[in-house]
Amino acid sequence: MTTTATWPNSPAHAPTEEELDRLHAWWRAANYLSVGQIYLMDNPLLRKPLQREQVKPRLLGHWGTTPGLTFLYAHANRAIRQRGLNALYITGPGHGGPGLVAASYLEGTYSEVYPAVGQDEEGLNRLFTQFSFPGGIPSHVAPETPGSIHEGGELGYSLSHAYGAMFDSPDQIAFTVVGDGEAETGPLATSWHSNKFANPQQDGVVLPILHLNGYKIANPTVLARIGDEELDALLRGYGHTPLFFTGGFDDEDPIAAHERFAAVLDEALDQIAQIKQQAQEDAAAGRESERPAWPMIVFRTPKGWTGPKTVDGNVTEGSWRSHQVPLGGARDSDEHLAELDAWLRSYRPEELFDEDGRLLESIAETAPQAELRMSANPSTNGGSVLEPLRLPDFREHAVAVPHPGGATAEATRVLGTWLRDVIRDNPHNFRIFGPDETASNRLQAVYEQTDKQWNAEIEPHDRQEHLARAGRVMEVLSEHQCQGWLEGYLLTGRHGVFSSYEAFIHIVDSMVNQHAKWLKVTNELEWRRPLASLNYLLSSHVWRQDHNGFSHQDPGFIDHMVNKKAEIVRVYLPPDANTLLSTYDHCLRSRQYVNVVVAGKQPGPTWLSMDEAIVHCTRGLGIWEWAGTEVDGEEPEVVLACAGDVPTVETLAAAKILRTRIPALRVRVVNVVDLMRLQDDSEHPHGLAQRDFVGLFGQDIPVVFAYHGYPWLIHRLAYRHDRSSRIHVRGYKEEGTTTTPFDMLMRNDTDRFHLVMDVLDRVEGLATRYAGLRQQMEDERFRARAFAYEHGEDLPEIAGWQWDEGAGAQDETVGATGGDNE
Amino acid sequence: MTTTATWPNSPAHAPTEEELDRLHAWWRAANYLSVGQIYLMDNPLLRKPLQREQVKPRLLGHWGTTPGLTFLYAHANRAIRQRGLNALYITGPGHGGPGLVAASYLEGTYSEVYPAVGQDEEGLNRLFTQFSFPGGIPSHVAPETPGSIHEGGELGYSLSHAYGAMFDSPDQIAFTVVGDGEAETGPLATSWHSNKFANPQQDGVVLPILHLNGYKIANPTVLARIGDEELDALLRGYGHTPLFFTGGFDDEDPIAAHERFAAVLDEALDQIAQIKQQAQEDAAAGRESERPAWPMIVFRTPKGWTGPKTVDGNVTEGSWRSHQVPLGGARDSDEHLAELDAWLRSYRPEELFDEDGRLLESIAETAPQAELRMSANPSTNGGSVLEPLRLPDFREHAVAVPHPGGATAEATRVLGTWLRDVIRDNPHNFRIFGPDETASNRLQAVYEQTDKQWNAEIEPHDRQEHLARAGRVMEVLSEHQCQGWLEGYLLTGRHGVFSSYEAFIHIVDSMVNQHAKWLKVTNELEWRRPLASLNYLLSSHVWRQDHNGFSHQDPGFIDHMVNKKAEIVRVYLPPDANTLLSTYDHCLRSRQYVNVVVAGKQPGPTWLSMDEAIVHCTRGLGIWEWAGTEVDGEEPEVVLACAGDVPTVETLAAAKILRTRIPALRVRVVNVVDLMRLQDDSEHPHGLAQRDFVGLFGQDIPVVFAYHGYPWLIHRLAYRHDRSSRIHVRGYKEEGTTTTPFDMLMRNDTDRFHLVMDVLDRVEGLATRYAGLRQQMEDERFRARAFAYEHGEDLPEIAGWQWDEGAGAQDETVGATGGDNE
Repeated sequence: MTTTATWPNSPAHAPTEEELDRLHAWWRAANYLSVGQIYLMDNPLLRKPLQREQVKPRLLGHWGTTPGLTFLYAHANRAIRQRGLNALYITGPGHGGPGLVAASYLEGTYSEVYPAVGQDEEGLNRLFTQFSFPGGIPSHVAPETPGSIHEGGELGYSLSHAYGAMFDSPDQIAFTVVGDGEAETGPLATSWHSNKFANPQQDGVVLPILHLNGYKIANPTVLARIGDEELDALLRGYGHTPLFFTGGFDDEDPIAAHERFAAVLDEALDQIAQIKQQAQEDAAAGRESERPAWPMIVFRTPKGWTGPKTVDGNVTEGSWRSHQVPLGGARDSDEHLAELDAWLRSYRPEELFDEDGRLLESIAETAPQAELRMSANPSTNGGSVLEPLRLPDFREHAVAVPHPGGATAEATRVLGTWLRDVIRDNPHNFRIFGPDETASNRLQAVYEQTDKQWNAEIEPHDRQEHLARAGRVMEVLSEHQCQGWLEGYLLTGRHGVFSSYEAFIHIVDSMVNQHAKWLKVTNELEWRRPLASLNYLLSSHVWRQDHNGFSHQDPGFIDHMVNKKAEIVRVYLPPDANTLLSTYDHCLRSRQYVNVVVAGKQPGPTWLSMDEAIVHCTRGLGIWEWAGTEVDGEEPEVVLACAGDVPTVETLAAAKILRTRIPALRVRVVNVVDLMRLQDDSEHPHGLAQRDFVGLFGQDIPVVFAYHGYPWLIHRLAYRHDRSSRIHVRGYKEEGTTTTPFDMLMRNDTDRFHLVMDVLDRVEGLATRYAGLRQQMEDERFRARAFAYEHGEDLPEIAGWQWDEGAGAQDETVGATGGDNE
Repeated sequence: MTTTATWPNSPAHAPTEEELDRLHAWWRAANYLSVGQIYLMDNPLLRKPLQREQVKPRLLGHWGTTPGLTFLYAHANRAIRQRGLNALYITGPGHGGPGLVAASYLEGTYSEVYPAVGQDEEGLNRLFTQFSFPGGIPSHVAPETPGSIHEGGELGYSLSHAYGAMFDSPDQIAFTVVGDGEAETGPLATSWHSNKFANPQQDGVVLPILHLNGYKIANPTVLARIGDEELDALLRGYGHTPLFFTGGFDDEDPIAAHERFAAVLDEALDQIAQIKQQAQEDAAAGRESERPAWPMIVFRTPKGWTGPKTVDGNVTEGSWRSHQVPLGGARDSDEHLAELDAWLRSYRPEELFDEDGRLLESIAETAPQAELRMSANPSTNGGSVLEPLRLPDFREHAVAVPHPGGATAEATRVLGTWLRDVIRDNPHNFRIFGPDETASNRLQAVYEQTDKQWNAEIEPHDRQEHLARAGRVMEVLSEHQCQGWLEGYLLTGRHGVFSSYEAFIHIVDSMVNQHAKWLKVTNELEWRRPLASLNYLLSSHVWRQDHNGFSHQDPGFIDHMVNKKAEIVRVYLPPDANTLLSTYDHCLRSRQYVNVVVAGKQPGPTWLSMDEAIVHCTRGLGIWEWAGTEVDGEEPEVVLACAGDVPTVETLAAAKILRTRIPALRVRVVNVVDLMRLQDDSEHPHGLAQRDFVGLFGQDIPVVFAYHGYPWLIHRLAYRHDRSSRIHVRGYKEEGTTTTPFDMLMRNDTDRFHLVMDVLDRVEGLATRYAGLRQQMEDERFRARAFAYEHGEDLPEIAGWQWDEGAGAQDETVGATGGDNE
């Protein structure tokens, strides 16, 4: 276990009057720059009278949350300098972008990253103009913002990101601003419980600051309206020691507010230092640390603090009316223009910037230097600190396959043995996240190497269940938390896997949208270094929900993902254990992707030896000659294609029926692992050239495609290659219940017998010639269903079927388990 | 406002010894039937020795949560009888299906709904055999289960559903069991705050019962491991008065447990009666009621209570090992079979059922009768109590359109005036739900009629913001809560609309999956009556995220929905205010659908008069002759198709450019409102016949289609109609940032100039003949972008454009606002 180095604990002192003045000056500067970004496109230092045409024609941005964010940033800076903290700043209300852009500009980071935006009047003008401007920068704390790992546009993930960032970062602290609007979302509401998982010895510190400015877009917030007593109980119930700060109301002197808040923050940081010191002592003594009641801050200040008190007679400061742009008419109305002028001048820019437009040194030096600047913390550019995983050789975990289908294995269980060794070799920068499904998805081999990290109460008998204070597996029954933690972990330069039931990964549809967008934008930013990919392992999939039925059946996450940019998304459907191993090795080496891997956990045939699997996965798809009945030099009459483990079993069963019953029919079997290969190479980097597509699927012959998910996706992917009607896709068409796997296939017309019927219907002349066989297939599926249920038969043995026709192994039966699989 | 009738408040008395015995007998019967369902397919009363072959070959189901559910059900029944309560039972851990099936069977409801499953030994045998059996019933509290409005397969929505069910049901109570696993999910974690919205005068009561059985699938739960003190603080922080019950541990005498729990439940119900009485008095006096600290119960009992203490030497009762099927080897192992036998006999079935296999009358009568049975409460079959809305004439809200495009309106703002009148005419069974976006989406006219319901603190100035103790608009910054509330409201027979930003509706992707599945299954159940449709109004859409940028741009919810069954899903993209009115009138009349309506909130042209709009919406798509340059009797040379308000503007702009620059080109303009019309009529009930498709889009001519969302969806929908490459779709291809609407279109090649370029590239011979025009278009878009930004021009005026070529109105310019629009 990593244990914390000495937590910086320089004795803090209350700020002197001069320090308060300079702190306040820095805050004024940050607010001035924020307002400037929202409104101005010229005259950035107001050295000339403010004119209408200096105001942007479209006023876009969010003022309301901004002054609170800059206030907290200024105070965090003071604490960093005094205590030497290694700190991140995570902005829940990410729409307060101008504030964070301003902060990074004042710290010099912005000009380092974007030299065109220099520390002078011209740079200031660029800073202002580019904001929310075509060709400029977004209005949020976006990937473009130095120091950000959290866009915040979709609210609710600040705490999950912060905890994810702090796992295995024992020397760091994340100042995490939680918006009170955001706090109403489900993901945020449960993420408070992250503190039951963080370990004070091995992980860093999250200091949540609930930014209680009272209003959302158009309404008050719940947490601002339940009274301090109830709020205090709630936060204690979340496991925190809340410290309350209320400031900025009733024309409070800002210096007084600064002084009072500095004391609150010092109190929180002193508590943290004490907890960390205790953890160090515990670690030194080989003791576990108890879960502490970590401090947190309730920061109640007016929305739009220091902005216009009223606009057009309506209360604005301290109201939802401050949410976006309070003076919407600044370009069109003299009154608004004058008010904007007064507002800007209220920050006294002439006292903040020198002749050239550079922040006065006396103010600038209140911020920390170099990598201690939150805007320049290397962890916030995760790729810059990313170390590649030391990956053990996955070939050593191969299932021995005497002939195709000649070994039975549970694919994810085999993968688990490799992941166990990945954990062994990477004890500090790799974690597995799952919603209570790691064992259900058959990855339990990892517990030979590690434990599930849990810092709520542990009972003695939990120890044998691999519950421990520290471990590489994070399990909480919230897909949102798993996703948020993993994102935070990846964004700060580490690696991980999210293992989930296939159907419920839709719960994070919207979160992964945002992560994919983050990756897309960072691909366009040279200074952002590539991150480890976000790897999904989706098991307990649609075809094998024997216990749970219809509610657990949805393979549509793939459809959701393929709407994101092609450069970001990869989808793999390995048909067996060996291909899963090869696929996952590839995923853990990759960067800047979202890898969606769907794999079964039930015993199933292993089709390919490891060498064959590697070749197959490298190609992404290929012809399985041994499964078909092609004749050299002649085009096949039909292609049976498949993608996904269960459809592959059915396809091979159909191929065997055809081989037996219509031996002269030239059948080709194609298996697809990398779904993106079906696209055209102009659409996706993994896409096939038209020539290669024809080489695999022929030019005009019918293709019967058994697909894991919703069938129409195959058409959408192969669209440019083939717009004829020759590809006939079977898959899940939203028919299901609690039933056997074979019945599931039958309900969706994807069973082996139906695939044979499809071939008969599609290959010219067969339907009439083999009318009897067609009827027989129809009967057979009903018999098979009943028989399979009664005898508890699983798919590889339905109707006495087994694949025993591997190369040179015609006489062998499907053996028991091969290789290291149990 | 509806105010509560007299809350039933018959004096409760502690149960007598005999009552406790009978209560216990009912519980034993429910548990016996639950175990029987999981294991047996014969010998249901154990009148013969238990044999292996009487055990099902596949043991599927969840035992762990079941005994707790049946215990609570039995006690709820006692309370209902004593107090005359009108109660629902909502089962968060819905996988405990056997328990609820057992309860409804014991109450007789099951046999009433499914006469084949009678109240005798044969019926019992059917009850057991059908469970989790092919052709039988699901393992969860599914739509098939009488009394259920909540499947619970995807965890997290029990409280939201319960509150939704209780809005406007002042005389009802929902006993709502919250699983402690479920409690870790985000949606559940925030749904505790629902009590800040419920009104004690007008709404019913939710009694949350936190089922703290300590374990999930393979792990302890967070709330079971934070200690009672922290848990108590948390629940008080949620605004509740928690009552703690711990029972069933250390071999507690079950009668003692019953006696103690009865007292706890009575305490909770006494508190509720008092709150309701106070609310009645307040209502009578015309006073508002304060938000009370509603009681709730913490129910800490062993997981798998009354099941095997150990299995194969492992602790089972009180452990996660009870989660599914504790004796997995009952068919294969003598030991497990004997243990199953002993387990079943521990409930002493011979004391519970008479000679025929019928529950003894003395036990049966402990349950309530007729509609007071929770399994037969009419509200749980919402369609049976559904009253159609009284819909005001939407035509009266029409925007007057002197000629196509001859009036400007904000579509959703106009809709708001009609919704205002819908609320006026339906004061008790219609609500609007939104995540703080009702005004942002421009529906504020509704506040002329109603308020936002809010039962947290109200400050005096909130009153002018339409915050009130009761109102028809529910706003909380959680899409999960909005969706859950609306679902609960619909499932109990009412109507509603969910208004949301388009991008963030993905947050409920997984929830709407479950609702669509519920609708699909209930379509197959004769006894379940049709519900009002779930209506989305998605605004602030992808093309108009001027303030927020990339994070707020995602039109993929449509793609997500079309994977659900065609009978369930409808998608509408009305191009203007009048078509939106007509569409929404249709949606509010419809049943059993999920209606997705995407509409803009920005000022835009109104193309059709109301009469034309009605015809157009009834057809779902059609040719806009006035926009094209067709020549009677000749086929057009190109079709410009469009779906969505912004693409419609661009398409008409492109049509105008073409008309001006290539007057001889025969252009047809087709607008699509009902997206499902693009499918084949064999795939979707709204689908077009092939003949009609050709009639609109021609046979072989190029089609340039400007679509609101991800372009490939159009191919997927029109796939069966047209597999050629002649349809060329433009749409959002995941390029965006904070920028102007025109720049957004440009980034995605969907702007008017690019559409013209597409026409030039697609219609034979034009590219060479009009090479100059092509280049000009390329230049024009860059010029237009800069000019539009600088002059704050919106789409209808880009590059000086306006649609002024309406029939007979060539000389008119686009006027100011028409009709009743402001």
